[in-house]
Amino acid sequence: MSELILSSIKEFVKREVEPLAEKIDREDYYPRELVRKMGKLGFLSPLYEGLSLFDTCTIIQEIAKVSGSVALIQDAQGELVIEPIRVFGTNNQKEEYLEKLARGEIIGGFGLSEPCCGSDAGSINTKAEKIHGNWVINGKKMWTTQGLYADLYIVMARTGDPKLKEKTITAFIIKRNNCVKPRKIEVMGNRGTGTAEVEFNECEVNEDDILGGLNEGWKVAKYALLIGRIAISSIALGLSIGALEEALEWSKQREVFGSKLIEKQGIQWYISKSVAKLYAIKSMIKDVCNYPLERLEDIEGKISSLKYLASNLAEEVIDTLLQIMGGLGYAKGSKTERAYRDVRLTRIGEGADEVQFMIIDKVIRRKGIDYLLQ
Amino acid sequence: MSELILSSIKEFVKREVEPLAEKIDREDYYPRELVRKMGKLGFLSPLYEGLSLFDTCTIIQEIAKVSGSVALIQDAQGELVIEPIRVFGTNNQKEEYLEKLARGEIIGGFGLSEPCCGSDAGSINTKAEKIHGNWVINGKKMWTTQGLYADLYIVMARTGDPKLKEKTITAFIIKRNNCVKPRKIEVMGNRGTGTAEVEFNECEVNEDDILGGLNEGWKVAKYALLIGRIAISSIALGLSIGALEEALEWSKQREVFGSKLIEKQGIQWYISKSVAKLYAIKSMIKDVCNYPLERLEDIEGKISSLKYLASNLAEEVIDTLLQIMGGLGYAKGSKTERAYRDVRLTRIGEGADEVQFMIIDKVIRRKGIDYLLQ
Amino acid sequence: MSELILSSIKEFVKREVEPLAEKIDREDYYPRELVRKMGKLGFLSPLYEGLSLFDTCTIIQEIAKVSGSVALIQDAQGELVIEPIRVFGTNNQKEEYLEKLARGEIIGGFGLSEPCCGSDAGSINTKAEKIHGNWVINGKKMWTTQGLYADLYIVMARTGDPKLKEKTITAFIIKRNNCVKPRKIEVMGNRGTGTAEVEFNECEVNEDDILGGLNEGWKVAKYALLIGRIAISSIALGLSIGALEEALEWSKQREVFGSKLIEKQGIQWYISKSVAKLYAIKSMIKDVCNYPLERLEDIEGKISSLKYLASNLAEEVIDTLLQIMGGLGYAKGSKTERAYRDVRLTRIGEGADEVQFMIIDKVIRRKGIDYLLQ
Amino acid sequence: MSELILSSIKEFVKREVEPLAEKIDREDYYPRELVRKMGKLGFLSPLYEGLSLFDTCTIIQEIAKVSGSVALIQDAQGELVIEPIRVFGTNNQKEEYLEKLARGEIIGGFGLSEPCCGSDAGSINTKAEKIHGNWVINGKKMWTTQGLYADLYIVMARTGDPKLKEKTITAFIIKRNNCVKPRKIEVMGNRGTGTAEVEFNECEVNEDDILGGLNEGWKVAKYALLIGRIAISSIALGLSIGALEEALEWSKQREVFGSKLIEKQGIQWYISKSVAKLYAIKSMIKDVCNYPLERLEDIEGKISSLKYLASNLAEEVIDTLLQIMGGLGYAKGSKTERAYRDVRLTRIGEGADEVQFMIIDKVIRRKGIDYLLQ
Repeated sequence: MSELILSSIKEFVKREVEPLAEKIDREDYYPRELVRKMGKLGFLSPLYEGLSLFDTCTIIQEIAKVSGSVALIQDAQGELVIEPIRVFGTNNQKEEYLEKLARGEIIGGFGLSEPCCGSDAGSINTKAEKIHGNWVINGKKMWTTQGLYADLYIVMARTGDPKLKEKTITAFIIKRNNCVKPRKIEVMGNRGTGTAEVEFNECEVNEDDILGGLNEGWKVAKYALLIGRIAISSIALGLSIGALEEALEWSKQREVFGSKLIEKQGIQWYISKSVAKLYAIKSMIKDVCNYPLERLEDIEGKISSLKYLASNLAEEVIDTLLQIMGGLGYAKGSKTERAYRDVRLTRIGEGADEVQFMIIDKVIRRKGIDYLLQ
Repeated sequence: MSELILSSIKEFVKREVEPLAEKIDREDYYPRELVRKMGKLGFLSPLYEGLSLFDTCTIIQEIAKVSGSVALIQDAQGELVIEPIRVFGTNNQKEEYLEKLARGEIIGGFGLSEPCCGSDAGSINTKAEKIHGNWVINGKKMWTTQGLYADLYIVMARTGDPKLKEKTITAFIIKRNNCVKPRKIEVMGNRGTGTAEVEFNECEVNEDDILGGLNEGWKVAKYALLIGRIAISSIALGLSIGALEEALEWSKQREVFGSKLIEKQGIQWYISKSVAKLYAIKSMIKDVCNYPLERLEDIEGKISSLKYLASNLAEEVIDTLLQIMGGLGYAKGSKTERAYRDVRLTRIGEGADEVQFMIIDKVIRRKGIDYLLQ
Repeated sequence: MSELILSSIKEFVKREVEPLAEKIDREDYYPRELVRKMGKLGFLSPLYEGLSLFDTCTIIQEIAKVSGSVALIQDAQGELVIEPIRVFGTNNQKEEYLEKLARGEIIGGFGLSEPCCGSDAGSINTKAEKIHGNWVINGKKMWTTQGLYADLYIVMARTGDPKLKEKTITAFIIKRNNCVKPRKIEVMGNRGTGTAEVEFNECEVNEDDILGGLNEGWKVAKYALLIGRIAISSIALGLSIGALEEALEWSKQREVFGSKLIEKQGIQWYISKSVAKLYAIKSMIKDVCNYPLERLEDIEGKISSLKYLASNLAEEVIDTLLQIMGGLGYAKGSKTERAYRDVRLTRIGEGADEVQFMIIDKVIRRKGIDYLLQ
Repeated sequence: MSELILSSIKEFVKREVEPLAEKIDREDYYPRELVRKMGKLGFLSPLYEGLSLFDTCTIIQEIAKVSGSVALIQDAQGELVIEPIRVFGTNNQKEEYLEKLARGEIIGGFGLSEPCCGSDAGSINTKAEKIHGNWVINGKKMWTTQGLYADLYIVMARTGDPKLKEKTITAFIIKRNNCVKPRKIEVMGNRGTGTAEVEFNECEVNEDDILGGLNEGWKVAKYALLIGRIAISSIALGLSIGALEEALEWSKQREVFGSKLIEKQGIQWYISKSVAKLYAIKSMIKDVCNYPLERLEDIEGKISSLKYLASNLAEEVIDTLLQIMGGLGYAKGSKTERAYRDVRLTRIGEGADEVQFMIIDKVIRRKGIDYLLQ
């Protein structure tokens, strides 16, 4: 990453994100204006701006050091919405949406999960039926980040026999209108991201609103999830680094039992172990970022390994750091307290741990282990 | 425990605590009226009512299944305030305070921790100076549960050379008046318990307000902490059982990937491991409750072992259960979401993990390991 | 436990077991004479001698502190062979075998596991067919402790439709003769226990050799396993205590980086955590020992919880202690090195972790969690 | 790595190492002839042969899949002895030793650890005194791999005030002769590697036998350890992969409770988690191998993080795999049984976990965390 971009995101985070971070969490406040600013500077969708996947990860990481919520907004807008349109969109779709989304002028929501089936996304019930040449969509999506505020949704819907699972799913772009009814879901962490249950009630779209081809929705969803899993791993890493910086600072000033915390062997070991774990996450991120975007599906097993370990190691690390912070880590106002709640999402969102296990298992059976360990 | 008491606490929890539990958490609402009701029924201080320590634990556990906050209030009022007065109070003190506290007519706060020193309680700075026959107290206490609402405080203060650490600490009973300034501390979990930083500013009390004798405050504090650690272990257990019940229920109705969650081996193993861990906690609680209250100090190492493991195992268990709950476990409204935040306190409050390690280490050196493992 | 018994087992272990412990491990040496001595003093089968289950556990623990192998021999002879005969044997069987087994004059082997099915004991293939009034037994048993040296075997065999699983299994007492062919299995730890694969080739026995009734073998096996799981948990605890004593001793004399190991906070925390875990094991053992032998089946879930946690916590503890011992812990000659290998069996033998999970799961479904956590 | 080298090491391992692996372990047999063969093919010191550090790691990994012992021999000869001479040797030293060592004609031992001080290598006692123009060396080294069989030793000795710790240590090359008395140390795993305590008794060498300059021994030792830590991490990875292959194979054929092990969700999750962990190790190895050898000291913190996590994750993985193997994993003859013992060394050798924590701590204080997480 050019030093320029790194210093520019660092500066942006300090100036624009940090002052809002606590309000976003405490008031469940969606920072609409901040999204526009991120868009202006090209941080909403680094890939669209021509930056690399690794740069994208670094940008996300820098944001997450200060606010998991804003990082998740970036992920939802950039990786889950802009990126699939960039890759699978028709020229018209790209022209109509990409620039506006990238600038943060309009907001996007990615609709895959449903109340019925959570991680079992191949079983979704939302239906699209062709009636008089138009597609009419009915169904409910869950856990849609930015769902409350989105101007358009990428919605996975059933366009054939449900028994065919992934093979009869189509992605539609649906613009917000009266047929869309989002209902707020309040969550423990990553607050202020507009997480919602979104009901689509007789929403009519036409053929041109299909993204990626009829019954090709799974391909779109999968690509979004592959990128999204790398992004969420970067969030986990960023949250950890943010908390680590706070805990290091604290351990240098806090004195108990006759010496600074940082001078105590037990605390040093806590920190050293934590740093080692974060280094592991970073190394995996580097490794997956070595592959071109077109080949992400080939390294699905690596990405799932990264997603599983990044979120779990980050949770362990932040839990340890909270212990170093003591009461302060448990009180509102510390970054660690927020990170502790935020990081818990990373083991659930964009495929829970258990879904990653399934994917890795499937990959091992198909390709063996060699490919994963090379 | 007589079945009668068990069914009466269960009924009380269902009728009075459960309906308030979410409001207490969400609004940081201190349930003043509920405390009175608990007092009337004798749940605030089972030991004062003549019940056993094991019964006390069961009552706390039953409350914590539904609300960690209410259980912590019980702990603060019953184990940290009433119990030391019951054991160390003069006849006058007992007469003046015990019945009122036990009935929930007045509220008590236990002031040991200070901003200076957290877990290093032997180093506290709050000073009591004898001026014209009265004791004048100045200092700041942190993390005092019920601190915002207390009518009286048991305050540990320095009454001699600070270098003598534990040996120059005296416990005072200070009634709320203008000299007391509590400041709210907002926390991640166990909300609605009135946690506060409490400033004592030229508070005058007299000789009769000393609890347990001049320079004998450490004995009072230690006893309160020993009981408190058993109580907080019971909170950890209760929180876990509450979440376990919710997750079990969910796993029986939730269907993904073709079968109920409960039918999946991976989920079954999660639950079996969790149950085994809770059984370990319960067994340790039973064991420490076999000792008479007068001998708790003799089993300090056991109590610290219990406190450390109960809080850590409970945290592991609830983390696993949240994973079973998936998104719902991360969303407001689930007991597991609340338990996840509540349980984190149990590794910090009444002596962090690391303090328990110090105590166990000290005990091993003094008495060897045999006594712990018999 | 009377102090007398405790001091007598301690003395015996020191005098008779300790000097042999390393040879038993190194040479895979079965201490035939020692078994006789244990028998003479009543240590082979404390329950037969009228001691309590808790006393039995303490005796096993004391032996395992010095030799996991000898403790396993005690388990195999006492809990897996003598105890089922004591409980389920006919008067003739008791008269013929009990006293001889208890005195170590004859050796017994318990044959349940088979190459086919390991932990899935309900699927065993060994067959008993009634031919001319006699039972003819054919099959192979695996992992039989003392299998190489046994004078008699309790063998579970199929006496009906294999599809009926546990319901068509019968226990037979088979005396060693030409039809029995044991083959040594060399193992990583708990060496010198005569572990063998035992082939039964047209072994003829008669009606009187059935133990516990036709098609009632599962009841016999289950009882043996329930007692055996408590016994093996005591082995896990004893191994840990033995290693802990060694590591404590070492940490008091070893000086690196300017101070004794025991003075280093990191090492203190290792030890404190370890002690706490062992306390948890001991508490669970105490709890299950509170139930009469006749009710062990009612607390199957507790026993499985104990077995799972005792073996896993002990493994964690000994792993940590080996780390304290450093190179010495990895070198032959240290108790910790031996304990590290020995303890690994306790997660596999008498029902692997995963079997305990199945049992706990089954119990929870049938009885709920309350019973486990009371 | 060129496919050629990879297939050639794979073939070599299959043909030459695999048939010996069990004998090496069981008989504590040092495979002198095999070392010569490895030398002939250039596997003893890939760096000397012009291969990259990453290639070196892959070669070690492939060997360790089959034999931790042979991989450790490679490490001792190649990374701990040949490599320091290659980098720090005078022309004469290089000429005299390198080719012979690389071909396995002579064997080398690296002598740093001492009975006094284990991981605290800066405190060593072995003394070199200049007497009549020659250096006379006295002292004892511990845990020297190949110590029993070495023809020459690189010995760190004190050449000044011991209080100056690392600053008065000099590396000497000492040829085997009567002054050298090795004593075998028998260990749990990685057997057959000739591990020894080596006594140097009035060993005379001269100025030309100093390696790397007077009082510059720490530089030599540190370089060897940096490479050695990467090597031992590769051993940890290789051992894990070997065991994983065995366990996967077993889980595909083993049937219990009505289906193959591999079809059981619990087992799938065990395997998926294990694979993810190995992927993390591999990613870190890749990352450190991106740095030129001259800069290894700059990434000391990364290398210590890798060493700590590789050994710990590998231990976790092999422990899980042994559980899948069940009794077979505990019995002699399975690769997993051997790997379980072998891998335990990797947390102790070439700097125990706790030494890595110290190094990481030191690095964080000096350079901050950014450098580690970039």
